Amino acid sequence: MTMKRIYLDNAASTPMDPAVIREITRTMTECPGNASSLHGEGIHAREILERSRSGLASILKCHSGEIIFTSGGTESNNLALKGFALANRNKGNHIIISSVEHDCILNTCRWLHRAGFRITQLPVDSEGRVDPDDLRAAIDSETILVSVMHVNNETGTIQPLNEIGRITEEYNIAFHTDACQSFGKIPVSPEELKADLISVNAHKIYGPKGVGALYIKKGISLDPLFHGGGQEQGLRSATENIPGIAGFVKAADLCRDVMEEDYLKQVIMRERLTNRLSQDFENVYFNGSSDSVPGIINFSFSGQEGEGIRLLLLLDEAGIAVSAGSACSSNHGGHSGSHVLQAIGRNPVEARGAIRVSTGRFNTMDDICMFCDILYKMTVQMKPIYSI
Amino acid sequence: MTMKRIYLDNAASTPMDPAVIREITRTMTECPGNASSLHGEGIHAREILERSRSGLASILKCHSGEIIFTSGGTESNNLALKGFALANRNKGNHIIISSVEHDCILNTCRWLHRAGFRITQLPVDSEGRVDPDDLRAAIDSETILVSVMHVNNETGTIQPLNEIGRITEEYNIAFHTDACQSFGKIPVSPEELKADLISVNAHKIYGPKGVGALYIKKGISLDPLFHGGGQEQGLRSATENIPGIAGFVKAADLCRDVMEEDYLKQVIMRERLTNRLSQDFENVYFNGSSDSVPGIINFSFSGQEGEGIRLLLLLDEAGIAVSAGSACSSNHGGHSGSHVLQAIGRNPVEARGAIRVSTGRFNTMDDICMFCDILYKMTVQMKPIYSI
Repeated sequence: MTMKRIYLDNAASTPMDPAVIREITRTMTECPGNASSLHGEGIHAREILERSRSGLASILKCHSGEIIFTSGGTESNNLALKGFALANRNKGNHIIISSVEHDCILNTCRWLHRAGFRITQLPVDSEGRVDPDDLRAAIDSETILVSVMHVNNETGTIQPLNEIGRITEEYNIAFHTDACQSFGKIPVSPEELKADLISVNAHKIYGPKGVGALYIKKGISLDPLFHGGGQEQGLRSATENIPGIAGFVKAADLCRDVMEEDYLKQVIMRERLTNRLSQDFENVYFNGSSDSVPGIINFSFSGQEGEGIRLLLLLDEAGIAVSAGSACSSNHGGHSGSHVLQAIGRNPVEARGAIRVSTGRFNTMDDICMFCDILYKMTVQMKPIYSI
Repeated sequence: MTMKRIYLDNAASTPMDPAVIREITRTMTECPGNASSLHGEGIHAREILERSRSGLASILKCHSGEIIFTSGGTESNNLALKGFALANRNKGNHIIISSVEHDCILNTCRWLHRAGFRITQLPVDSEGRVDPDDLRAAIDSETILVSVMHVNNETGTIQPLNEIGRITEEYNIAFHTDACQSFGKIPVSPEELKADLISVNAHKIYGPKGVGALYIKKGISLDPLFHGGGQEQGLRSATENIPGIAGFVKAADLCRDVMEEDYLKQVIMRERLTNRLSQDFENVYFNGSSDSVPGIINFSFSGQEGEGIRLLLLLDEAGIAVSAGSACSSNHGGHSGSHVLQAIGRNPVEARGAIRVSTGRFNTMDDICMFCDILYKMTVQMKPIYSI
């Protein structure tokens, strides 16, 4: 890949911030120890671990003791749901999620269903939002856990978590949210989201792959997924990935520092993109919500929905990386159409044809203009497929 | 820590090889993509992933399709045991392990016991070895899985895996081995160990923390620990840690390249160390086996066993990092005495007082001499505690 590429798939994974790479490289070099060892090298590793934990706690506005580090968002979500369900089975066997959750929530719930739990999937409206009244109606005496993501990975839709959290609080039900797509972009804290369990990860915020964390409100009991040496309060045995954890928290720090200005930049890029698309294509329509994070723009061309993957591959040849929905479902088990777009009312063909552009901190307005120019030229050549 | 320290705790965690750090740093910089994405960046990530998988398969002398990457040894061991037990429950509910396994095998088996499995722990002889006849006697019609570690992390004892594997093969029982302490030091392959499942990890072989792998013989069924996007053949959903995986396989490659010469170097360092200890201290005795990997030397001072931790801390002050048993059990749940040393016949006090010196590729003979000198001086000062 010699030509300069334009990477517009930040919701799948972000390029790493050079300062984060330096932090990890430095820690790999300077910290050989195992954080469980009693000697100086062990103490040094433990200091970095606990400093990182305090740093993340300060960003999430919670106590250090409420954070455990994991290998990423999938593990955090699995630990939250399975861990809570198995530890609290005596209280009930009913779990409520939304129908637009990430595959790792959906498939974890399929596993829990086979293990004897009842799962209710809440519908969403045409913009992808859960109606808190639907949640209220779904709760019964067996309900122990509600899990609704903060920001959807395909459409960027922000869920009304504060309202959901007030309801779960009223019924004394635990509330988990997958905040992997919101963390670092908009404020995420137990107080603001009214959540008891929050999953976050590093590789969506310019940090390393293979690192994440789970906020666990004091008093919430979980069964561990990993048994072993008893690290992370016995909830996540394994030698801690000190360089990765240090890099994760460095990345989270940097996101906090630039959050407001970066948000504004993403809003401006989104406006430029949606305006250009609307000008250039009569038949473009947007999937998602006006109340969404600005970095995720999901759109389709009316009547041409079967062409999504073809368009993605042509854009890729032209040097632009975008996505047709979630990365995780692209390569594993075929591309049967986004369950998220189907949940907001698109038919299966429409659900296969969307393009997701996700911008990030390292994108510029030039990237957006170049993308629009190339997309326009490309579709002129493809005429009469696109109605321009 | 400004003075040059001597790190002799390589069995807990190794310093990283600079070439591995460079590989990871390069991959973090050059590979922003998610390996599940369809565009060029995704393809690039997938290429690194699959090249790494082929590389590890070539080292383990197995097929690429038989390797899945994990977050480390603890996860690999949990996945092997829970994954196999839960997927094969219909065939039987009996699992056999040795009594000197790492905490992550022991505690996983305690969890499986609570889930309805019967666990048999095989005794070991005074050198820490399982007797294959004991295994044969323990097998019954319900036995589905045997797990015996390759090399013990506290004593270095090598188990007779080939004999064990022949027995499990004869009875058509699956055989797992935790090879985290042997991989990279002595030959590890399914053929040589006669194993169906092999756990390996990176941070004991000069690679990164937070990365490991599990060899799964074709035809063996496991339930996953993580549900989600379906990565790693559906056995380990999660966005793959491409830089970590590339670093792991780089580390494994380097170990293979220097295995013979490094083994010889470790043997010579062990000889020097054991000779000096035997000369300097009348009351020293060694815990373990003559048939052990050379990099792990475990010893005690007769009559002074209660002083192990004190000695460790004094050595640490003098600039030397050693261990009093497994790192993982040092800090979590107190130090109640090594279950490994108790299994070879030491009493609880003796089991608390041992010192483990574990040498590695970056140690020199000077380190050994310095360690012996400092230990001698220190114990002269501590007289009459040590019989010198």
